[in-house]
Amino acid sequence: MENRCFYNSDGDFLIVPQKGKLLIYTEFGKMLVQPNEICVIQRGMWFSIDVFEETRGYILEVYGVHFELPDLGPIGANGLANPRDFLIPVAWYEDRQVPGGYTVINKYQGKLFAAKQLVSPFNVVAWHGNYTPYKYNLENFMVINSVAFDHADPSIFTVLTAKSVRPGVAIADFVIFPPRWGVADKTFRPPYYHRNCMSEFMGLIRGHYEAKQGGFLPGGGSLHSAMTPHGPDADCFEKASKAKLAPERIADGTMAFMFESSLNLAVTKWGLKTSNCLDENYYKCWEPLKSHFTPNSRKPAEFN
Amino acid sequence: MENRCFYNSDGDFLIVPQKGKLLIYTEFGKMLVQPNEICVIQRGMWFSIDVFEETRGYILEVYGVHFELPDLGPIGANGLANPRDFLIPVAWYEDRQVPGGYTVINKYQGKLFAAKQLVSPFNVVAWHGNYTPYKYNLENFMVINSVAFDHADPSIFTVLTAKSVRPGVAIADFVIFPPRWGVADKTFRPPYYHRNCMSEFMGLIRGHYEAKQGGFLPGGGSLHSAMTPHGPDADCFEKASKAKLAPERIADGTMAFMFESSLNLAVTKWGLKTSNCLDENYYKCWEPLKSHFTPNSRKPAEFN
Amino acid sequence: MENRCFYNSDGDFLIVPQKGKLLIYTEFGKMLVQPNEICVIQRGMWFSIDVFEETRGYILEVYGVHFELPDLGPIGANGLANPRDFLIPVAWYEDRQVPGGYTVINKYQGKLFAAKQLVSPFNVVAWHGNYTPYKYNLENFMVINSVAFDHADPSIFTVLTAKSVRPGVAIADFVIFPPRWGVADKTFRPPYYHRNCMSEFMGLIRGHYEAKQGGFLPGGGSLHSAMTPHGPDADCFEKASKAKLAPERIADGTMAFMFESSLNLAVTKWGLKTSNCLDENYYKCWEPLKSHFTPNSRKPAEFN
Amino acid sequence: MENRCFYNSDGDFLIVPQKGKLLIYTEFGKMLVQPNEICVIQRGMWFSIDVFEETRGYILEVYGVHFELPDLGPIGANGLANPRDFLIPVAWYEDRQVPGGYTVINKYQGKLFAAKQLVSPFNVVAWHGNYTPYKYNLENFMVINSVAFDHADPSIFTVLTAKSVRPGVAIADFVIFPPRWGVADKTFRPPYYHRNCMSEFMGLIRGHYEAKQGGFLPGGGSLHSAMTPHGPDADCFEKASKAKLAPERIADGTMAFMFESSLNLAVTKWGLKTSNCLDENYYKCWEPLKSHFTPNSRKPAEFN
Amino acid sequence: MENRCFYNSDGDFLIVPQKGKLLIYTEFGKMLVQPNEICVIQRGMWFSIDVFEETRGYILEVYGVHFELPDLGPIGANGLANPRDFLIPVAWYEDRQVPGGYTVINKYQGKLFAAKQLVSPFNVVAWHGNYTPYKYNLENFMVINSVAFDHADPSIFTVLTAKSVRPGVAIADFVIFPPRWGVADKTFRPPYYHRNCMSEFMGLIRGHYEAKQGGFLPGGGSLHSAMTPHGPDADCFEKASKAKLAPERIADGTMAFMFESSLNLAVTKWGLKTSNCLDENYYKCWEPLKSHFTPNSRKPAEFN
Amino acid sequence: MENRCFYNSDGDFLIVPQKGKLLIYTEFGKMLVQPNEICVIQRGMWFSIDVFEETRGYILEVYGVHFELPDLGPIGANGLANPRDFLIPVAWYEDRQVPGGYTVINKYQGKLFAAKQLVSPFNVVAWHGNYTPYKYNLENFMVINSVAFDHADPSIFTVLTAKSVRPGVAIADFVIFPPRWGVADKTFRPPYYHRNCMSEFMGLIRGHYEAKQGGFLPGGGSLHSAMTPHGPDADCFEKASKAKLAPERIADGTMAFMFESSLNLAVTKWGLKTSNCLDENYYKCWEPLKSHFTPNSRKPAEFN
Repeated sequence: MENRCFYNSDGDFLIVPQKGKLLIYTEFGKMLVQPNEICVIQRGMWFSIDVFEETRGYILEVYGVHFELPDLGPIGANGLANPRDFLIPVAWYEDRQVPGGYTVINKYQGKLFAAKQLVSPFNVVAWHGNYTPYKYNLENFMVINSVAFDHADPSIFTVLTAKSVRPGVAIADFVIFPPRWGVADKTFRPPYYHRNCMSEFMGLIRGHYEAKQGGFLPGGGSLHSAMTPHGPDADCFEKASKAKLAPERIADGTMAFMFESSLNLAVTKWGLKTSNCLDENYYKCWEPLKSHFTPNSRKPAEFN
Repeated sequence: MENRCFYNSDGDFLIVPQKGKLLIYTEFGKMLVQPNEICVIQRGMWFSIDVFEETRGYILEVYGVHFELPDLGPIGANGLANPRDFLIPVAWYEDRQVPGGYTVINKYQGKLFAAKQLVSPFNVVAWHGNYTPYKYNLENFMVINSVAFDHADPSIFTVLTAKSVRPGVAIADFVIFPPRWGVADKTFRPPYYHRNCMSEFMGLIRGHYEAKQGGFLPGGGSLHSAMTPHGPDADCFEKASKAKLAPERIADGTMAFMFESSLNLAVTKWGLKTSNCLDENYYKCWEPLKSHFTPNSRKPAEFN
Repeated sequence: MENRCFYNSDGDFLIVPQKGKLLIYTEFGKMLVQPNEICVIQRGMWFSIDVFEETRGYILEVYGVHFELPDLGPIGANGLANPRDFLIPVAWYEDRQVPGGYTVINKYQGKLFAAKQLVSPFNVVAWHGNYTPYKYNLENFMVINSVAFDHADPSIFTVLTAKSVRPGVAIADFVIFPPRWGVADKTFRPPYYHRNCMSEFMGLIRGHYEAKQGGFLPGGGSLHSAMTPHGPDADCFEKASKAKLAPERIADGTMAFMFESSLNLAVTKWGLKTSNCLDENYYKCWEPLKSHFTPNSRKPAEFN
Repeated sequence: MENRCFYNSDGDFLIVPQKGKLLIYTEFGKMLVQPNEICVIQRGMWFSIDVFEETRGYILEVYGVHFELPDLGPIGANGLANPRDFLIPVAWYEDRQVPGGYTVINKYQGKLFAAKQLVSPFNVVAWHGNYTPYKYNLENFMVINSVAFDHADPSIFTVLTAKSVRPGVAIADFVIFPPRWGVADKTFRPPYYHRNCMSEFMGLIRGHYEAKQGGFLPGGGSLHSAMTPHGPDADCFEKASKAKLAPERIADGTMAFMFESSLNLAVTKWGLKTSNCLDENYYKCWEPLKSHFTPNSRKPAEFN
Repeated sequence: MENRCFYNSDGDFLIVPQKGKLLIYTEFGKMLVQPNEICVIQRGMWFSIDVFEETRGYILEVYGVHFELPDLGPIGANGLANPRDFLIPVAWYEDRQVPGGYTVINKYQGKLFAAKQLVSPFNVVAWHGNYTPYKYNLENFMVINSVAFDHADPSIFTVLTAKSVRPGVAIADFVIFPPRWGVADKTFRPPYYHRNCMSEFMGLIRGHYEAKQGGFLPGGGSLHSAMTPHGPDADCFEKASKAKLAPERIADGTMAFMFESSLNLAVTKWGLKTSNCLDENYYKCWEPLKSHFTPNSRKPAEFN
Repeated sequence: MENRCFYNSDGDFLIVPQKGKLLIYTEFGKMLVQPNEICVIQRGMWFSIDVFEETRGYILEVYGVHFELPDLGPIGANGLANPRDFLIPVAWYEDRQVPGGYTVINKYQGKLFAAKQLVSPFNVVAWHGNYTPYKYNLENFMVINSVAFDHADPSIFTVLTAKSVRPGVAIADFVIFPPRWGVADKTFRPPYYHRNCMSEFMGLIRGHYEAKQGGFLPGGGSLHSAMTPHGPDADCFEKASKAKLAPERIADGTMAFMFESSLNLAVTKWGLKTSNCLDENYYKCWEPLKSHFTPNSRKPAEFN
């Protein structure tokens, strides 16, 4: 079998495996990344990935910027993702000739280029510095939220952010909805109805997403573009509106996440057509809502 | 008649009506905006506009940034546009079924999309926050300028600015030339001849623009692109050069304005051709100038 | 009875009434401030206070800076204290001669000066701007905290902050410990043992402070200076260490607060001696702790 | 006669001569500075001054910061003081032995120290850089102000500022009130009644200060401390309130100035007593005001 | 012969002549620029260039930003390029009619436009300000580098930088490798093997580039795109690895330089094909390296 | 013997041992620090020090700020002190009763306080975070300097800096003059004559300081206050002025350093009198200089 490794000259990859383990070889060492963990492989790093079964997941690529922890402000030193829970590889190398050669594939300006070499590229004996790939187990996220009343913005679940140069505006945020206690009194607890100045791409690693329990499966995705209103489905709305509020566990066994960006996301032809995966009835989840909102031209038609 | 409302996912609108009143319905309430007033409707806000007669004006759209008051520095707390003169709507709503449905039109990435709903979108009973549309009467602008000698930069007339992240460089400035006293001694008082690191789009709401009295009518526009020199017409130059300087009223009954941008503005095919409005003799206003500047290839020819 | 009003040329007052109502007359109007509310009266504002019974409380004065809401970062727009819950006075004035004159007392560089005038100083008919006194009801504080595991820094309870020019370092923070749900699993829930780079002055408006239930009464105060370790008393430690963790209400009926400063606080002679209020046995609350920490020279002795 | 030169290790001097010329020798060359000019001699520069007649003026010393032009913002490139009007010395030196020696006096931490040397300290043959003394003729100040209505803050007259590290807060501003046109309609044109978050020390170089024509002479000074209200005298108020507003020249033949500081200024014993110059009746200028403001304890008495 | 002048509405030119002198006429005056000097002509400036022989060189154009000296930090006031070595023109003008007219060519949004005028555009009699073209002799660069051990980053040779708004990320840097002493002990002295987060375009003004002595001639260029590894050729590696380290002169008679950019550089069709200058064997310089790195598909093939 | 440990509530200590080893016990573990190493123990950390022989050195204390590496700018990632050469302790603890008790001494607001406890304070079993004491071997400093001509500012030798909030102004810099190559051509290589906007306290760890070879011994110190000129002694000047410039080793076997501060340093009575160490003839080192500079009143006399 052919030996291949890869590096990306364009940007950084945030990888969210949803099914199957990834054994990632990098110049810095090896990482085993499993569902409910994420990893980041930055621009310029050579890596290859072994898989052992059917594997799938989500990848977010950002350009010209690296992911970092959000500024915590009053949250203080112990909240959200803790630096010490980000694991980096231990140096590892192999010194071997590769029969047939190693194919090095480079993503450069959105295109792929290939070159060959005879030795393994994983020949870095030791390294120092802090520009390294890393992984993070989402179970380590220290969740904070309302403990009296009212509903916090989902930004409170931010794991990593790739900042633009405009303060408060992110190229991309990686946000999760982990298992936690819900205790807010006098409050509609599910995500509220809103429109967002950012694009929201949601994915589900496991379990059932609270705001759309039936129609959103692990491995699926939804995209709500900037400024178009959305919120929980009618069923969720009904239940949460009538719920008697007491402390309760939320999202046990579930891990949903969001790629949120101040930029607009284009959907590929593959996503819209080839994959045959588009949910044409998505909008119907809101139809039973009492607000009579009936967007009956579900296929956005160009106007005028 | 069909019911329509609109929202813009791309950016913010600065609307400068020049003729006819606008009755603007928004989710935040209603605003009546007349010539010599301006209004701003931001990204994501649903609105529709009623007009009562022939109506026209100017719109400036900015992306990824909102308009704000300029930093005043030594001008201090009382100069230029005052925050308290910006008026925002009072909450208003209607709770009604719309026979035939309400068509909601969305501008997204420069294209228009439509959806239908049965109830009025103007169903917001109350709101709080400061992300609201607003209007401003240009008569409230507190004008400052030279009161001894020399000529200030037109930035001194800035009403609103949409800042880029590079300090001192605006995505767009909205600048006006209001009625005022001219008292600068030993000074050529009209706009000086210059080239600009920004694009200048000028418009005229009413009256006569001082630097080009004959050839620039209310509702018209002129565009001087970055770094190409320009200035008053020959007639203005002659008069102002010989004028005996005493305190005099400038621009009474007139309101000219400028959309100024650090970016280059493209002119649509409609503007260049379809409208049949292009002034092919514009350059001739400078021909009588003593400087012998004779740009006789008025239609810019591609070179080389 | 004499008529007096007061203004402070040195700094801003944050007033925390603990017992009795304050009817505060200011140039901007009147405010009734009761225990569990706070108010801020800034530098230069003329005011006088009427009380109706025995009254006491706490005052924090800051120089060269004003209080503001903390930067919320990932907490988002709805967390902690909300701008709309800060109430400002409605304009009010009186136009009257004062027999015997009004005595205007000015605090200037830590000294008091007096002048007299014949008319009421509360003669401001109308005003505009945002430099106004304000009050805030602590019950409106939207409390967030851990909803899974681990213990957040008390900065998560920050109501107002007076920032120094060094990012992250406050001249003073005003922090409260309001009624809330405690749900953190696998966690020692009371304040942890720590040393702080800031000075902590704690006060109690009502109820029982969770980390020292017996020895800290409403109207009392404790001061832990920078970098000296401290934490819950032995009793609290014992109970919390053995508690079976389930959702529980914390601090119902209680409101403790903290004035926290990056500066060192000096205690007046009145506080140390005259008041006869010093708790000489304070250190004993830690003696039963298993850590054998026995600071037996409780009156700090100057060394060497 | 003894030869002396001086350098200041503590801060920068802003010198405002009010009477008599100053011939200033510096290591960088010579400057002749006359009334209506100012000069700045920075920390560490060796200089001596020759005078030719009775000489007096004002000096402002700032620590840890240098004077600079204010950020002009919308005022643009041509307003207020222009960089090219600040004149710096041409290199000049003398190579001579000094019989009896040159006494070099150093101001260090507020004390004076002396050392002797045999040669002239003005022995710098050439230099480069931009850390030089400079002078500025106040007649070159490009004055801007209201040209329609309303009253600008006096900061609009800022010549130089010594910034603190808190944006918008100056260690010291140097502000002038130069001859200019007054054209603001519907406006009380003299300085309005106000209290200030800064200390105001006013001086008069020549002419008559508009807000207190009789009682404030060239060479005099007034100090209004932070947050204590003040304004024009009763006579000025009466006249300006009734004046028919038309364009008029203001302050012709006059040059008043202000040293304004966010810090409090202490008055020396010399100023309060020894000089015998204190105006004990200063407060009476406001007594005739209709507002009945009667501060009859003019000598501030310590209260309580 | 036709008279032409040029101005660029898009950006600034950094011109690096490699062969032949340039006599540059600008509105600000004339500059003679020879190889080993560089000059910068900014956006909007009118200029024309006379040459006297075969002439060639390199041009770097940047948009929306100007070149400036790098922040020196601990390097202090005397290192790298000194402000006083940047020379600007003395005002010069001509007042003449041009038979046939002067053709003014404008580069605007990447296209060229032409207009005609009858008089010379070089008619500026005097000017002031600091927006001027300038030249710099590379011999004046004050070189710093390791004087004990280890190898500094080539950024230590930065002459000018055009900063992006992201701190530490340059739109473009202009870097030179001037004659200097090499004294680093225990160090591989030539450029180390590396991959770069920026694009590196190297050129050679004269002499022999140390890291590739045979294959890189004056007037040539090499481009190493972001994140693709590169370094000295095998010959250089061999020699430097075995060299006995003593103080030695490096690059005497040589001047190589680098245009470095955080953006990717596209190569024109002219560069890749028409010029017939592409070095198809470039990659072979690394083949003899012991690392067996053999990129044998030298023409990047699109992969997949 | 008594057991003591210490913590400083006021600031951070930078310790420069000059003679004798220090075995430092801290809550984070143990550090052995020897001459030519430095260590930093921050505010609030408990430590005690064992010595084995006669010991002496220098301590610099800074308030309200921590030491950090300087911003390297064009120097790049490999210059000056490298982060990886700063060593931190490995966790270590002891669990023992202390007969007679452990005396904990606290420095608070410049005074010392003591308390007793029965167990060892070094009872921290494990820790995480980055607020730790550290040590650094000065031999690891990667020295850069001029490798062509001219003389760099001594800031180029900065190891650590404690920044004020004013950019470019340090509370304190720690600067060293390590062994290195001197190769600058056409340059006076020793420190140049200068006056400084900072205070310079120099010390010598070992060897001979190049600018004052005879009169400055290991363990000694010199203080040059802000803005008073100074430089090499006459002997150094003579030699360096006539030296034939070739590559040469500088400071082999020597390590001088500087504590540099934007603040003024006061000398204690112990330093000026009690120690009997003041060099009353220090100024004479400059007397033979040809510049005839003769500061013959060596004991600064208060003037006037």
